[in-house]
Amino acid sequence: MKEDLKLSPEQHSFMAEAIELARKNLKSFNGGPFGAVVVKDGVIVGKGSNCVTSNNDPTAHAEVVAIRDACKNLNTFQLDGCEIYSSCEPCPMCLGAIYWARPSKLFFAAGREDAAKAGFDDSYIYNQIPLSVEQRDLPTSQFMTAEAKSVFDSWVELEQKIPY
Amino acid sequence: MKEDLKLSPEQHSFMAEAIELARKNLKSFNGGPFGAVVVKDGVIVGKGSNCVTSNNDPTAHAEVVAIRDACKNLNTFQLDGCEIYSSCEPCPMCLGAIYWARPSKLFFAAGREDAAKAGFDDSYIYNQIPLSVEQRDLPTSQFMTAEAKSVFDSWVELEQKIPY
Repeated sequence: MKEDLKLSPEQHSFMAEAIELARKNLKSFNGGPFGAVVVKDGVIVGKGSNCVTSNNDPTAHAEVVAIRDACKNLNTFQLDGCEIYSSCEPCPMCLGAIYWARPSKLFFAAGREDAAKAGFDDSYIYNQIPLSVEQRDLPTSQFMTAEAKSVFDSWVELEQKIPY
Repeated sequence: MKEDLKLSPEQHSFMAEAIELARKNLKSFNGGPFGAVVVKDGVIVGKGSNCVTSNNDPTAHAEVVAIRDACKNLNTFQLDGCEIYSSCEPCPMCLGAIYWARPSKLFFAAGREDAAKAGFDDSYIYNQIPLSVEQRDLPTSQFMTAEAKSVFDSWVELEQKIPY
């Protein structure tokens, strides 16, 4: 994809912050070289750097950490009107997290191929996700479907629920 | 996909526990009706139920919570030799998290279409992920690529890093 050349100095400063968070991990050894910030109304409201290995949490990618931080700071589970700046194209887990958080815009710097060259599985997982369950490398079985569907039926009938 | 009919009573008990965690959320109002457990050597080592709305965390899906719990309990960021039982087919975020955690097998009960009928975006996000960045509904721009790639170059040269 072609780089977007129309962005403001402010937007460059947000991405520079995300890249700086990535760079700090080269010295802190907290995790992989990835950083992200969440911005609302021109102010950084959440930050994250990868801390998979230091926190023993395979889900602690920069974007996930930044989303959790922003949601905590904003006291919400939806990032309406927010922008996410990530030092690298989000992996499918992080892209899924971003879709669930529903920000208005995403910016990234390095691409998934760059991540792959640096030894990360992003491209591999992007190739696995769209496959049918039977085609994936991860052995997967489905069972007890009726029992689980009955919980969904009860959810649909529930009046007090909070949708997300 | 066809249900797997060859599973053991023990495996049924693990899935029953995942479904029970989902069902409990109908009364606790902690989040959506989803549950998951992580099993190693025939023992449950991690549990999770959806707590998106109660924790203000859009990433707190049952599988992510269960993976975090198991990794904490096992003091690791990799679920080698573990099985994950989820009351519903994982959404792309959770499937990505599962690939990063690298368990040996995945079992699920309800499917993504069942989740969609109950009001959840799983199918929509599955359709978005494989699209090119330009085709997705989420407005996305790439910039400052060279700066971010230089961090990856430094990572590749780093001797002390912990790969994941």
